[in-house]
Amino acid sequence: MEQKRILLTVSYDGTAYVGWQFQNNGPSIQDELEKALQKALGRFVRVTGASRTDAGVHALGQRAHFDVCSSIPPEKYPFVLNRFLPEDIRVTEGIQVPPDFHARFQASGKLYTYRIHNARHPSAIFRHVTAHVPVPLDEKAMDECAKYLLGTHDFAAFAASGGQAKTTVRTIDAVSVRREGEEITLKVHGNGFLYNMVRIIAGTLIYVGQGKLTMDCIPKALESKNRLDLGVTAPACGLELTRVEYAFEEGGRAEW
Amino acid sequence: MEQKRILLTVSYDGTAYVGWQFQNNGPSIQDELEKALQKALGRFVRVTGASRTDAGVHALGQRAHFDVCSSIPPEKYPFVLNRFLPEDIRVTEGIQVPPDFHARFQASGKLYTYRIHNARHPSAIFRHVTAHVPVPLDEKAMDECAKYLLGTHDFAAFAASGGQAKTTVRTIDAVSVRREGEEITLKVHGNGFLYNMVRIIAGTLIYVGQGKLTMDCIPKALESKNRLDLGVTAPACGLELTRVEYAFEEGGRAEW
Repeated sequence: MEQKRILLTVSYDGTAYVGWQFQNNGPSIQDELEKALQKALGRFVRVTGASRTDAGVHALGQRAHFDVCSSIPPEKYPFVLNRFLPEDIRVTEGIQVPPDFHARFQASGKLYTYRIHNARHPSAIFRHVTAHVPVPLDEKAMDECAKYLLGTHDFAAFAASGGQAKTTVRTIDAVSVRREGEEITLKVHGNGFLYNMVRIIAGTLIYVGQGKLTMDCIPKALESKNRLDLGVTAPACGLELTRVEYAFEEGGRAEW
Repeated sequence: MEQKRILLTVSYDGTAYVGWQFQNNGPSIQDELEKALQKALGRFVRVTGASRTDAGVHALGQRAHFDVCSSIPPEKYPFVLNRFLPEDIRVTEGIQVPPDFHARFQASGKLYTYRIHNARHPSAIFRHVTAHVPVPLDEKAMDECAKYLLGTHDFAAFAASGGQAKTTVRTIDAVSVRREGEEITLKVHGNGFLYNMVRIIAGTLIYVGQGKLTMDCIPKALESKNRLDLGVTAPACGLELTRVEYAFEEGGRAEW
């Protein structure tokens, strides 16, 4: 049987995991996927993810590829794997891709969502998917400030150490901050993100929203390339990798 | 010290609980609140909730009153109690009410939210707060059908056995079904609800949304008073008691 490369879309609640990638201190999403594949296929298969999400970070549309010789039709993988996966990980799509396709290197765009529960007390219902900010935030100031991110810049100031990127130049082509009652949602779309970049953006905008940093902190940090010109790294639990995009799927890009 | 009656607003993720009220088979929200009050005040205090939500049902704005002789200012109860409560229960507000105020009997309106994850596979991230419906739902048909609920009717067909209501006449004054991507949200506002009423409404609209029941099922059931003219009772996990209203708080009513 011919070997096929399969690309999965994977959604998960990252609360119980050490992150996407294998680590010694607890279960990872990748571990769970590889265990489910082993149960389904009867042998070990290595999975390569588009993004190495951190501990506690969620994903609506992570992508991951693997190679397999199997008669299982690609679109059946969600059904086959969900039988063996825990409830907080769901495979939602399976398609066949060319043998040289790579989930990480070929990603052309990513959409992240960061959720803030802006109320006196933390959210009981959405505690795992929101960062709690008890002081009032001015979401209009946050939205206005976020627009300074738009364009192609050297985002060196927006990267935590530990990243492996060769260049710190990235393009952000859409960003918004919206409030609905006590929930503030940040969405950022770009061609790629540095290590902790979205959480540093979120933490900076949270500071701007409470007046701890002024609106010009972003242009200033883009110029200075100094991490210290920005706010703290916001908590992992507020972050969701919402979508990973590839050139062959042009349709998916339009919707926010 | 004078005895005060305090009214709390309580939010909870009902996943881990047997419901609002005490039961032998596991912890209830009321238990946890009474335990927290005992720790804070040094003695047992009985709490009376506005609504006895079922196992697995959530609340954003449950209300509950209790009597206390204490110098703690009413608005400090959230801080005092949240120290002793588990993370999935948060007290968000405390106010003093007249000694004859009753959280249940004086409720003049309630808003419920029912969340449906309408996609091939269940939601990993929001699995505890959504009901999964894998077949495509026509949310416009659901919204149109829901409008038949509006007005003052005998909702006898919309009640599960086990309720203690003296009359089955209720008034629903606002209802809507909206889609955002794979999430469908039903909101129902009325002066009171029978046992399982919102879950029966949700289950019926889910049937209408997939064409298993026709639009006229609601007027027919209002006429026949026959539970069998409606759909199944939708799962508890999709339901949230969003708000309980009282005549003394007119402001809160306007927003949806």
